[in-house]
Amino acid sequence: MQFKRIANDPGSRARAGELTTDHGTIETPIFMPVGTAGTVKGVHQRELTDDINPDIILGNTYHLYLRPKTDILEKAGGLHKFMNWDRNILTDSGGYQVYSLSNNRKIKEEGVKFKSHIDGSYHVFTPENVMDIQRTIGADIIMAFDECTPYPCDYHYAKRSMYMTHRWLDRCIKRFNDTPSKYGYEQTLFPIVQGSTYKDLRKQSAEYIANAGAFGNAIGGLSVGEPAEEMYAMTEVVCEILPEEKPRYLMGVGTPINILENIALGVDMFDCVMPTRNARNGMLFTAHGTINIKNKKWEDDFSPIDEMGITYVDTYYSKAYLRHLFAANEYLGKQIATIHNLGFYLWLVREARKHILAGDFAEWKNTMVKQMDKRL
Amino acid sequence: MQFKRIANDPGSRARAGELTTDHGTIETPIFMPVGTAGTVKGVHQRELTDDINPDIILGNTYHLYLRPKTDILEKAGGLHKFMNWDRNILTDSGGYQVYSLSNNRKIKEEGVKFKSHIDGSYHVFTPENVMDIQRTIGADIIMAFDECTPYPCDYHYAKRSMYMTHRWLDRCIKRFNDTPSKYGYEQTLFPIVQGSTYKDLRKQSAEYIANAGAFGNAIGGLSVGEPAEEMYAMTEVVCEILPEEKPRYLMGVGTPINILENIALGVDMFDCVMPTRNARNGMLFTAHGTINIKNKKWEDDFSPIDEMGITYVDTYYSKAYLRHLFAANEYLGKQIATIHNLGFYLWLVREARKHILAGDFAEWKNTMVKQMDKRL
Ligand SMILES: [Zn+2]
Ligand SMILES: [Zn+2]
Repeated sequence: MQFKRIANDPGSRARAGELTTDHGTIETPIFMPVGTAGTVKGVHQRELTDDINPDIILGNTYHLYLRPKTDILEKAGGLHKFMNWDRNILTDSGGYQVYSLSNNRKIKEEGVKFKSHIDGSYHVFTPENVMDIQRTIGADIIMAFDECTPYPCDYHYAKRSMYMTHRWLDRCIKRFNDTPSKYGYEQTLFPIVQGSTYKDLRKQSAEYIANAGAFGNAIGGLSVGEPAEEMYAMTEVVCEILPEEKPRYLMGVGTPINILENIALGVDMFDCVMPTRNARNGMLFTAHGTINIKNKKWEDDFSPIDEMGITYVDTYYSKAYLRHLFAANEYLGKQIATIHNLGFYLWLVREARKHILAGDFAEWKNTMVKQMDKRL
Repeated sequence: MQFKRIANDPGSRARAGELTTDHGTIETPIFMPVGTAGTVKGVHQRELTDDINPDIILGNTYHLYLRPKTDILEKAGGLHKFMNWDRNILTDSGGYQVYSLSNNRKIKEEGVKFKSHIDGSYHVFTPENVMDIQRTIGADIIMAFDECTPYPCDYHYAKRSMYMTHRWLDRCIKRFNDTPSKYGYEQTLFPIVQGSTYKDLRKQSAEYIANAGAFGNAIGGLSVGEPAEEMYAMTEVVCEILPEEKPRYLMGVGTPINILENIALGVDMFDCVMPTRNARNGMLFTAHGTINIKNKKWEDDFSPIDEMGITYVDTYYSKAYLRHLFAANEYLGKQIATIHNLGFYLWLVREARKHILAGDFAEWKNTMVKQMDKRL
């Protein structure tokens, strides 16, 4: 694997880069669509490849471990083959879902015992088996097993949790180094900075993570309910410490505005369920603001969904038609809105990249942030 | 409009034809996918056009009248423009849905008063306003307003109902002739044979309908729960009377086997929710029998969904992956299964056509009927 920095924006800390793995080159900044259970909900792989066109998608270890289970994925030759997706895949560590989906979980030094939200069965995630599971899923980029603290979080809890996440990281690295890549292509491990919304903890954690010497680094525990300003403050502190020459991944972020602001602070990679989840609720993101397509005002608006949109749905279907599909609870509405939103997110990060390369990212970002902060 | 008979099968009453309207040529026999509310559930128009490729689809007047309502469709310039579908559309008369979906309906000579299943509001369908509604939807082929009797049906009720359907037909024809085509292209009216499962009534009705001199004729009131043999017996009686030189449409039929058997009896057009509805329940039709993709036996079967399938999903995705999507309740599973089933139905009628042209339809049909009557 290789990360090449191509350009730095003069007016911000934004960077453009190229991350190359055995599954191809990822142009950064990048947004990774979330494909929880081996599918980006409602989107065919062909649409993902041809219309939305991301260089990488994300899979959720927790979901894939429970269904279809690792033995099936192993027999298939890994998730790439199972779902027939030949570009990059990053998997999260499963930690976040254990904390948010399982209604019965116990965190100990050894690992986390949890109850499946599907059938109530009990399971244990440890730093070691989570490495094994992600190796077997076949992710190109594997995430360390961490504890993602909630917001707000008591300082002492956040500190103790951070130390445990650091100890878990050492165990993750050991296990990762002791095991081979599973399917003949390289896999790499990203550690995760924690520390809640406390600057001193974030600095301490960023230093620990930087010292681990991984190929890339991630920032976790944000976008969990804190105000945007706190998120940006933490990203800023952490990006000052994480090495310039390595990719930085901000987990679970965010709105289009969050993404541009964090690119300005030096983040290269993002993932979030927002474009897909909000799409299924009829919320469309555009360069000129958000649209609630369920509103009656669109009932007889026969103009294209988004004249500037990059995907075929944007000009093929009208707002009135899409509004009708949502009113009639027709699933095609969710499909269309999902393709639109993901297309928009990918357009946004590509456009950001262009402006970083052109050296005018900061101004463009400020214009876009104002423009996108509207309801249409 | 024009209907050209191209070939008759020597071993059966099967025919191949070409039905040409202002929205293009329909090669018969044809299966019309059901697009109830202006969408074939879970299928993009692009997939319909490029992958499934029918020359005509069906819309449901009852659903479209309630949502998005005729005023929106009129403003859009008709359903073709509203949903961006440039090939043929046939609409049913709304009668069948009034009888099956509305839990509160009153049939009188004047028409039917019914309660919307969506918001409980009251509406009236009459032969006259159903012509107007279908004119406004913009269907190329408009269906007469009839009463579709249930199965089983008392002889005297069936007879009285048939007479009323005939009187309603006269009113439909009058209104249809008194009103112009709405959007500049030709619209045509198909009357419907009723008479339940009684041969004498079916004959009487077929004669009445044949005498109406419409461009094409339909057979209704079948596929409502009667045994297949009764269905075939009725089709046979009716097809002997309906004019050879006009297209014959058997409404709401059926399984792949039903379709081949009725083609053998002289039917040219079909529609049915079975390929789409069963797909959403994980039931796949193939040339070698049906597959319940939810079965555990497919869990680690990484072979293509259907190696003989005509759509891209058939070879792009594996049975194990599709099984996983159904197990995980992922909507992409329903999307894939729907495209597969519709692709199969369209393949089946096209293949039937080829064999009619080749003059060996009857033998081929017998082989296929045996082959498809299996569970894989
Ligand atoms: Zn630009
Ligand atoms: Zn053949």
